[in-house]
Amino acid sequence: MTSSSDSRIYVALVHYPVTDKNGDTIAAAVTNLDLHDIARACITYGVQGYYVVTPLKDQMTLVSRIVAHWTTGAGGVYNPKRREALERIRIKADFKSAVDEIEKKEACKPKTVVTSAREQSGSVPYLYLREMLKEPKPFLLVFGTAWGLTDEFMTEADYRLAPLKGVGGYNHFSVRSAVSITLDRLVGER
Amino acid sequence: MTSSSDSRIYVALVHYPVTDKNGDTIAAAVTNLDLHDIARACITYGVQGYYVVTPLKDQMTLVSRIVAHWTTGAGGVYNPKRREALERIRIKADFKSAVDEIEKKEACKPKTVVTSAREQSGSVPYLYLREMLKEPKPFLLVFGTAWGLTDEFMTEADYRLAPLKGVGGYNHFSVRSAVSITLDRLVGER
Repeated sequence: MTSSSDSRIYVALVHYPVTDKNGDTIAAAVTNLDLHDIARACITYGVQGYYVVTPLKDQMTLVSRIVAHWTTGAGGVYNPKRREALERIRIKADFKSAVDEIEKKEACKPKTVVTSAREQSGSVPYLYLREMLKEPKPFLLVFGTAWGLTDEFMTEADYRLAPLKGVGGYNHFSVRSAVSITLDRLVGER
Repeated sequence: MTSSSDSRIYVALVHYPVTDKNGDTIAAAVTNLDLHDIARACITYGVQGYYVVTPLKDQMTLVSRIVAHWTTGAGGVYNPKRREALERIRIKADFKSAVDEIEKKEACKPKTVVTSAREQSGSVPYLYLREMLKEPKPFLLVFGTAWGLTDEFMTEADYRLAPLKGVGGYNHFSVRSAVSITLDRLVGER
């Protein structure tokens, strides 16, 4: 992959179904800086679309307003670089709608790759996926908010990516950091 | 580097002297999520101390209060993992105070490594610094907020790290993403 135009990579930030601290399934609230930071990382690494998935109508409206401020509103005039990044955001009520839209655009169903801070059986290493992403196929990288994607959601994906590791046992990244590091490992210049 | 206890790496997030959009030198405001996200990335990669540098008294007080909430207050009880991360935060009025504290602790002046989104003459590549960090010496990685560290500050450092690159020409990361990716490139498990 030598330029962003070759990429057929998409990112989804899922707010439902995710788990809370106790393992219960919830719809998490959207965080403003998740929109900005992840959109900026996405455009840097040539991601074609950044899907923000939430079934909550008021949250969908909130995201639309924030994105509009930075794309068609005053924010876009003040900071055109931010506009360019936030233009890649698409808001969907459910994950299937994101997959369907990518399938329509790419004329091919995307392979889904889920991420987690927890060890997964049969997870793929970063270098393996990095090679696979060079194939001319669409891929959708999926990140969960709150305490992460539900087990059921994880098992339905095509691939499970190995958790990010540092040098000790602590791996409680913000989702903003996790997306940034994951994209750098998968498509960053080496 | 095999465990966090071997590390002699420190991180500084500098709010002064940095530049604004027009290139003027300013003292930037502290962003709450810079404290959380960067503290979490620091502990993951075995960073020994995370220095938040701001000369503004009200900002120093604000940071103290946020950190206290998550370390000695209610936040630390609610989320002990967050406590563990935020305990690495040190607040300093100027950069020299951070360097002096590290020198005292390590009995050796740390080598300073500055970062920037702009190309620098004589900058060192990531793999070079990754090897260098294995030496038994303290290093201080420095990140600027707003539009980045001033040129004068950059030239006074021991090393200038090459800018992060994705796959296109866009490299306007949030500082939260930049710290996370940089630490992963320098000390992350491969």
